[in-house]
Amino acid sequence: MTDSDYMMCALREAWSVKGFTAPNPAVGAVIVKDGTILARGATAPPGGDHAEVAALAKAGAASHGATMYVTLEPCSHWGRTPPCSDAIIRAGITRVVYAVEDPNPQVSGRGGAQLRAAGIAVTVGVGREEAQRINEDFFYSISSHKPWVSVKLALTLDGAIADSWGVSKWITGTEARQRVHELRGYHRAIAVGAKTLQADNPKLTVRHGGGTDPVRIVFSSTDEIDRASYFYRHSREVQSILVVNNSAYSAGISQKEGIHRWYTGCDDRREGIQRFLSLAWSEGIDSLFVEGGSGLVGSFLEARAVNRVYLFYAPQILGGGQKGLVLPPMPMNESLRLTNVTYTQYGEDLLLSGLLPRT
Amino acid sequence: MTDSDYMMCALREAWSVKGFTAPNPAVGAVIVKDGTILARGATAPPGGDHAEVAALAKAGAASHGATMYVTLEPCSHWGRTPPCSDAIIRAGITRVVYAVEDPNPQVSGRGGAQLRAAGIAVTVGVGREEAQRINEDFFYSISSHKPWVSVKLALTLDGAIADSWGVSKWITGTEARQRVHELRGYHRAIAVGAKTLQADNPKLTVRHGGGTDPVRIVFSSTDEIDRASYFYRHSREVQSILVVNNSAYSAGISQKEGIHRWYTGCDDRREGIQRFLSLAWSEGIDSLFVEGGSGLVGSFLEARAVNRVYLFYAPQILGGGQKGLVLPPMPMNESLRLTNVTYTQYGEDLLLSGLLPRT
Repeated sequence: MTDSDYMMCALREAWSVKGFTAPNPAVGAVIVKDGTILARGATAPPGGDHAEVAALAKAGAASHGATMYVTLEPCSHWGRTPPCSDAIIRAGITRVVYAVEDPNPQVSGRGGAQLRAAGIAVTVGVGREEAQRINEDFFYSISSHKPWVSVKLALTLDGAIADSWGVSKWITGTEARQRVHELRGYHRAIAVGAKTLQADNPKLTVRHGGGTDPVRIVFSSTDEIDRASYFYRHSREVQSILVVNNSAYSAGISQKEGIHRWYTGCDDRREGIQRFLSLAWSEGIDSLFVEGGSGLVGSFLEARAVNRVYLFYAPQILGGGQKGLVLPPMPMNESLRLTNVTYTQYGEDLLLSGLLPRT
Repeated sequence: MTDSDYMMCALREAWSVKGFTAPNPAVGAVIVKDGTILARGATAPPGGDHAEVAALAKAGAASHGATMYVTLEPCSHWGRTPPCSDAIIRAGITRVVYAVEDPNPQVSGRGGAQLRAAGIAVTVGVGREEAQRINEDFFYSISSHKPWVSVKLALTLDGAIADSWGVSKWITGTEARQRVHELRGYHRAIAVGAKTLQADNPKLTVRHGGGTDPVRIVFSSTDEIDRASYFYRHSREVQSILVVNNSAYSAGISQKEGIHRWYTGCDDRREGIQRFLSLAWSEGIDSLFVEGGSGLVGSFLEARAVNRVYLFYAPQILGGGQKGLVLPPMPMNESLRLTNVTYTQYGEDLLLSGLLPRT
């Protein structure tokens, strides 16, 4: 087994807790001695152990003289828990391999420096790309001070999210829908437009694959909410926000019937989204999953406020119907081009995902 | 190496000549003795050797006592060449493994029976699925007496084949475009609509990946052809057909300026396509590659006259533009659902392919 192989085990640990660690990043660690994995660890929910400490606790005294593989630079500062670097030094680890530097520019490199100063051999960069991918939301938001934004749509091959009669259940199959729930759990908040609330009455909860239920956000042009909606009826169980883009209401935040109301004080969709994003960041929302409908998704795309796109395609042709990607026409050479595109099959359906440049 | 492994080699031989063997199917054969591949063979262009005979010629006397793996049941009748079954028996082959029966219901099973009667051990069905896939056009057309029809479109993620200013070059990248040329070579004829001829002035030739240049077909509602078009100027070099769907012209076939003119005598798009398909089959066209534009593709889909769909998706969002899949709206539960869907990446682009039920 090489460094890459052991790091792959640590990366798998990190993926296993994705969605459960916010506001901390999902991190995995393994401790290896004489070619044997002594222990594995992953970030516990907030307030619990970081991955390094979790692994050290399992390995016990055997850690002495061992190598630790960890998907993120060990922290050297006090947060909710003591610094991991101290624990690593104290345990007698003699070599640390980590995938990527701490994304916080103020502390990046300090964990590594402290380990080196204690005489520990340090290797950086093994598995860097995937380690960044796992916490891409965390990396982005901590350095840009804006929430990471993902957009998800389930489409037919001709780009419809519902037929001409409004029927959208179910475009994609079971496997794809389970993956959507998992993706919901990866995000701090989930957003839909008022029309989608009206049409689908979604629960906006994580029902497969685990992850913490995200904050629920509805975008609307009025501050009326359908009182029969699941969103309204369950607003006291999970944080619920109504974002009102309408200059008829003055800008500000209030709370009514258990629902936070964020008034952007403007009508312009793009501007409203930018104001919402600033507010969301200041309120601790560092990642957002926009699930539709086409109006809200179009506004985010038009505002160039999307980091990652998740498009599920079902292998069917509908002919007409309601289109999912609705934007003002662009010339071919100015189209929104995705980068780092990946394609994954879920049952009969395909998930295409990629990154977009953001303003 | 198992039977499946050797058959995989034979299947690879068959794929290597796909597009060069019409009207024969693409067939591959390998001869194996004592765990060693003595020779490989594939169907030569019409009038040349079949795969079995090509492999036997290379193996020579060593064939005695060997096993032959072949992707299609060896023929037992005289076509342009003598029966392969005779050659196999004469060479002293002691076992034959073939993937699938001859699709011609009149001769299916006879080749196998003749081999068995000569004391040769025969195994049928190894690699059947892929063997059928290689010659799906041949299998379909010989049993249904209609041309196999494939449809190809290059689309943005929001389903556009051109932007709102008519620009379509180039949605997909080099690898995808090379694959399109290979697919052209797999078909006996290639079809576009008159508007596409006007807008793109396509050459409709195979310029990458080999294969024989297909017959070129343009669908139009008039019998006027742009004399500056490549289609018109090169009509004497490759068979060129103008299909005129218009009841103002009486039904029939004529030839003018090197271009065959097929008048269907009707205006209805769907009916015109069915009449064209009957005519095409009787004129020896057993497979057709419909490359666009959206009007012609829509007509074929609406007429339920499509066997296989090739959709190339480029990872870009255009917002508007000319949509590629244009059909009368269907309810979600009556949508055209593809089966046997495969996804293949070409550079940054994705090819989604699948089958449609045909009337």
